[in-house]
Amino acid sequence: MSEIIELCRNAREASYALAAASRATKDAALKAMAAALRAGTDEIVAANAKDVAAARESGTPESTVDRLALDPQRVDAMAAGLEQLAGLVDPVGEVVRGYTLPNGLELRQVRVPFGVVGIIYEARPNVTADAAGICLKSGNAVLLRGSSSAAASNEAIIAVLRSAVVEAGLPADVIQGVPGDRAAVKELMQARGLVDVLIPRGGAGLIQTVVTESTVPVIETGVGNCHVYVDAEADLDLALTILLNSKTQRPSVCNAAESLLVHADVADEFLAKALPALAAAGVTVHGDPAVVAAGKDVVAATDEDYGTEYSSLDLSAAVVADLEAAVLHIRKYSSAHTDAIITRSQAAARRFVQAVDSAAVVVNASTRFTDGGEYGFGAEIGISTQKLHARGPMGLPEMTSTKYVVIGEGQIRT
Amino acid sequence: MSEIIELCRNAREASYALAAASRATKDAALKAMAAALRAGTDEIVAANAKDVAAARESGTPESTVDRLALDPQRVDAMAAGLEQLAGLVDPVGEVVRGYTLPNGLELRQVRVPFGVVGIIYEARPNVTADAAGICLKSGNAVLLRGSSSAAASNEAIIAVLRSAVVEAGLPADVIQGVPGDRAAVKELMQARGLVDVLIPRGGAGLIQTVVTESTVPVIETGVGNCHVYVDAEADLDLALTILLNSKTQRPSVCNAAESLLVHADVADEFLAKALPALAAAGVTVHGDPAVVAAGKDVVAATDEDYGTEYSSLDLSAAVVADLEAAVLHIRKYSSAHTDAIITRSQAAARRFVQAVDSAAVVVNASTRFTDGGEYGFGAEIGISTQKLHARGPMGLPEMTSTKYVVIGEGQIRT
Repeated sequence: MSEIIELCRNAREASYALAAASRATKDAALKAMAAALRAGTDEIVAANAKDVAAARESGTPESTVDRLALDPQRVDAMAAGLEQLAGLVDPVGEVVRGYTLPNGLELRQVRVPFGVVGIIYEARPNVTADAAGICLKSGNAVLLRGSSSAAASNEAIIAVLRSAVVEAGLPADVIQGVPGDRAAVKELMQARGLVDVLIPRGGAGLIQTVVTESTVPVIETGVGNCHVYVDAEADLDLALTILLNSKTQRPSVCNAAESLLVHADVADEFLAKALPALAAAGVTVHGDPAVVAAGKDVVAATDEDYGTEYSSLDLSAAVVADLEAAVLHIRKYSSAHTDAIITRSQAAARRFVQAVDSAAVVVNASTRFTDGGEYGFGAEIGISTQKLHARGPMGLPEMTSTKYVVIGEGQIRT
Repeated sequence: MSEIIELCRNAREASYALAAASRATKDAALKAMAAALRAGTDEIVAANAKDVAAARESGTPESTVDRLALDPQRVDAMAAGLEQLAGLVDPVGEVVRGYTLPNGLELRQVRVPFGVVGIIYEARPNVTADAAGICLKSGNAVLLRGSSSAAASNEAIIAVLRSAVVEAGLPADVIQGVPGDRAAVKELMQARGLVDVLIPRGGAGLIQTVVTESTVPVIETGVGNCHVYVDAEADLDLALTILLNSKTQRPSVCNAAESLLVHADVADEFLAKALPALAAAGVTVHGDPAVVAAGKDVVAATDEDYGTEYSSLDLSAAVVADLEAAVLHIRKYSSAHTDAIITRSQAAARRFVQAVDSAAVVVNASTRFTDGGEYGFGAEIGISTQKLHARGPMGLPEMTSTKYVVIGEGQIRT
């Protein structure tokens, strides 16, 4: 048996005890994990320093090094995240629906853990603690595969978390790191039946690899090519405020706007205000001929621009003939993450909400709200952009399956 | 562009109109489809006669020919199924959750169709109408790929249904058959992004092929190696009634019992009654040494027997030391479809329900109730044995995804 298969089997075995654990036990484990992180700050920061030094030596960009680096404050934030999870409602056992059948059978659909969850992610060691906490609270054993460039950090964090869960009376193997090279990851992605679901967290390349190479069911997360459509009936001041917030409040994240569509009837008036404001905010606009004609410093957009998640202070822009043209543009180019309309028209809002099939469809607000925290979920494992199982921000309930419990008194089928 | 890709794109285009259709329009289409099936009975039965003749000529077993064969009564039953669907609640638009966020944003999670659904199934032409109806009611365009041995029947049925939906004002391409050879099916299974979900309906071989070869998300259905566990605290008369019903009421279906586990404390008494009763019902028991010793005509079971879905009048059987041993046996061998305990003990029932992680866990009733009709769903596309998205009988709500609709009045993130 390979090392990976053994890890998976150990996770399955540990998952049985975790699935049977009470909320009190799980919350005690989360608090123990938080305390252990704080107590282990020195060793975690020391291990992280090795990863950071190696990253700098190999010429890693400083923005990536910043995501990798841990200091006592960041370790404390990880601990605080685990404590917050302890305060959330346990999704396991929730009755999703229930009624009594005509023959007297009591039918209940009840949330249960998946069992074993694999998380594949990039060089952000805070994901190690976050994902371990969310999986533990939702009753799932977790296999954590971070970037090899964060290997020392992750190893230190996982060791600390494992000893904490044992203290709380749970098996250490509810939390395991996945060691080894790319072949090991490939094996993890092929462990159908041993791993119940894989969740990739990171850039488009990582997600695409996991989606393509896995036979284990995958929940796709995160790619966001988000649109703001300014309708003919928009309040243009409101539209500009929302556009600027959607684009510039945090341009690197998946719910930031990447594309502006403007109804032809208001294009001149809106662009006259918006283009200087965007320029003043440091945004480079990549526009179609109508947008190029409306302002200076607008770069001519290629077809590729409209399909791009810039994750930077760039914005594609186009003038559209009407709402239906905006819908067609969004259907063609959107990653179906978050798309917004700005309008005072009830009919336009209703049509946009119906016709745009994205994880989040927004009327008169910033795209930046698509987030488990903003939605009041308390915790988020990622933002699903697929249609199966979960769509949009995924909180604790999305980390569960269900089963039907049927209670009778001798009923047979005739 | 290949023929299959073109079919998928036409389905996507048609899906937009269907997603926007009201319940009234969809119900009118279902009724038109039912009327068209009845009006087209002669041509459908004539087309089916060709398939049946070819099947007999190639030496197909008579039981398979029976599933393939249509007569006016069976066509009428298909029509009645579509009419029944018209009476069910539309899942599209259902608000799954909704509340107002602290900043005044109105958040609603709303059911929406998947978009394009592919159904891959065996030589049962009634599935063509059933699946088309369920997909239409849930707002999904459907690509129907039946067995090539039912090609003439399916072609006739699909032609009739397509003309009916056009009458009702919907695009014909909301219902399409998938022609071609195995390469075409392979292409369908690889049409990620064009097809939102694939549902295989049929035997274990078909399901395994689709699960392994698809990059499109799949919902696994149907394999049932179901257990009846007779606890030390069971009412043994009740246990025997439930066992016989679970095994013999319809042995060919996935929710029929395939395996009996008996607590050692009651094994002698129960088996003394059960083995003659099973024999009288025509059941061949494949038992472990304890079961073999308890009766005549018991065949010695191999390890393989315990993992087998017989779908026939065969039953594997074993004596277990206690409830925990029964749980371990079920974890090892069950297909996690439906597993039942017979007991008067509240503690035993509670532990079994917690520890057995199957789509349906049953206390003191037949395994045969795991069925969308019995659960009161009104329609069923299959019984999911996977944990992602849907588990157990899948009705209309399980044929939908959700999206978040967020309504504001200028909210931005700070």
